[in-house]
Amino acid sequence: MTASLHSLTPPPSLDPLVALTAPDMNAVNQVILSRMQSEVPLIPELAGHLIAGGGKRMRPMLTCASAALCQYNGSRHHMLAAAVEFIHTATLLHDDVVDGSGTRRGKRTANLIWGNPASVLVGDFLFSRAFELMVEDGSLKVLKILSRASAVIAEGEVAQLTAQRQIETREDTYLHIIEAKTAALFSAACRIAPVVAEAGEEAEDALESFGRNLGIAFQLVDDAIDYTSESATSGKDLGDDFREGKMTLPIILAYARGSEEERRFWKEAVGGERTSDEDLSHAVSLLKRTGAIDETLERARTYARRALDAIAPFPAGKARAALTQAVEFAVARTY
Amino acid sequence: MTASLHSLTPPPSLDPLVALTAPDMNAVNQVILSRMQSEVPLIPELAGHLIAGGGKRMRPMLTCASAALCQYNGSRHHMLAAAVEFIHTATLLHDDVVDGSGTRRGKRTANLIWGNPASVLVGDFLFSRAFELMVEDGSLKVLKILSRASAVIAEGEVAQLTAQRQIETREDTYLHIIEAKTAALFSAACRIAPVVAEAGEEAEDALESFGRNLGIAFQLVDDAIDYTSESATSGKDLGDDFREGKMTLPIILAYARGSEEERRFWKEAVGGERTSDEDLSHAVSLLKRTGAIDETLERARTYARRALDAIAPFPAGKARAALTQAVEFAVARTY
Repeated sequence: MTASLHSLTPPPSLDPLVALTAPDMNAVNQVILSRMQSEVPLIPELAGHLIAGGGKRMRPMLTCASAALCQYNGSRHHMLAAAVEFIHTATLLHDDVVDGSGTRRGKRTANLIWGNPASVLVGDFLFSRAFELMVEDGSLKVLKILSRASAVIAEGEVAQLTAQRQIETREDTYLHIIEAKTAALFSAACRIAPVVAEAGEEAEDALESFGRNLGIAFQLVDDAIDYTSESATSGKDLGDDFREGKMTLPIILAYARGSEEERRFWKEAVGGERTSDEDLSHAVSLLKRTGAIDETLERARTYARRALDAIAPFPAGKARAALTQAVEFAVARTY
Repeated sequence: MTASLHSLTPPPSLDPLVALTAPDMNAVNQVILSRMQSEVPLIPELAGHLIAGGGKRMRPMLTCASAALCQYNGSRHHMLAAAVEFIHTATLLHDDVVDGSGTRRGKRTANLIWGNPASVLVGDFLFSRAFELMVEDGSLKVLKILSRASAVIAEGEVAQLTAQRQIETREDTYLHIIEAKTAALFSAACRIAPVVAEAGEEAEDALESFGRNLGIAFQLVDDAIDYTSESATSGKDLGDDFREGKMTLPIILAYARGSEEERRFWKEAVGGERTSDEDLSHAVSLLKRTGAIDETLERARTYARRALDAIAPFPAGKARAALTQAVEFAVARTY
């Protein structure tokens, strides 16, 4: 997208999605707040820190918008969208322990404040509570979709751990990892809506595909942003992936395209031998010069188009328009 | 039990339970081995270390014996017993991360070999896989029992974390914690058997009570053993609880019964200021002299009798005899 295009049309925004799902999300937030309670005070305290901590609630909004797209008029999706957010929150808590992260959404992470043990255990609680919510709803089909997604997420996280600091990680391995750790929950969040709406298998497949492709696009952009954002606006530490030796597409591409000297740099960097601010600056300049960032964003746009194609058969209207803008927003983000 | 009694009747043993459930447990082990597989090699490698690592498989054996007690002839309980063992294994993996343990069942812990991140994530995988198995079986009633148990276990673990190094922890808090972290899964493992056997609510309640009381007795004895065992036979490090400042019943009783000087010692010990071998020896001598160990074991025997009362209404036979010996074995253990 060029600057002149930007000046003619307003930039894509999440606002239509937020507006479309606002009444539903009120109900979802009620479920979230009431069901993260426990007689053990540390649980709502720690969970609340993250849950109230400025997340966009992207996944439950997708469930609600998908339900709207299927013209669903019931309220079963509220409890299920809350379950999706609990699963997501549980994985964030465990991720921060795994990565030793100190900042999330611009705030200190729970593991930094309450320690790793509490983060692990409260994650387990939220995860169990998510399944309790699904059981309460009573759809075995939904339970199957979300238990499968949860197992796939964990597999993706372990695969990512295995690939960490491995400079030879291939692009298909990377894609497989982000499909598992990120896109699986996006696609499950979308697919459960046509299930409760009884919209049929075609709608289920379409929304699963929408969610999967959006999820991949979303993660690709996240992985690019890790090298381009300014920490203050992203709420994340710039270069976290770099210092952790995480093999994301920008590095895979820059390594593949690099000179012998550059490849040596990348090997040392991914191996953990180059962690200074100067090293990060050098990395960013290489990523830009080799076009690795642009190419990563270009691929993200390809997946975004696939996502939009997947929902093209649904009737035009507010729901489809909101989801369309959400996809465009996901790949236009630059912070 | 006195020495002369011991010489007249053979000591209680797990053998009848093992023999009773052997054919079932063959099938359960098949499920466990095939369903812990993943295309991510680290998952079966790490999970296998713990799963193949000499655990007694107490909980799935209880599911199988409970099914036998209900004269169940099907095979649905095999998959569900495997799910129970997966949940248990997941909690062990996370427990060892939480406690920073180095030894489990006489072997190095997974977190020591593969690191905390891998242990957290493989635990998450096994937990998700457990729910996939339950969904495959398709009983919402079973799903409800085990998702509830999982949430309660996590609550119990967080409550235990909160009580750690808190000398003023009361006995009812402690009982509440072990009911949650240990007895909840024992009781769920037992209750799901009459559910699949369609043995009726009375049988469900009876077996749940059996499992809960056995679980409490089991944990009480474990907490006593932590101060009396020889590491070589228990497969656990002697005094782990002591060094972690874990508030278990032996300490709660010894503190309550102690002189002013002794209470000062316990405060320092639980606070983490007395961790030498001499301190541990002194602690053990205090626990013995105040009768705290004996009293803990006596309480365990009370819960054991309740467990036996709970299954008294079931027909006499091999299953009831095996469960009876298992209970007696649980409270007669001294290693």
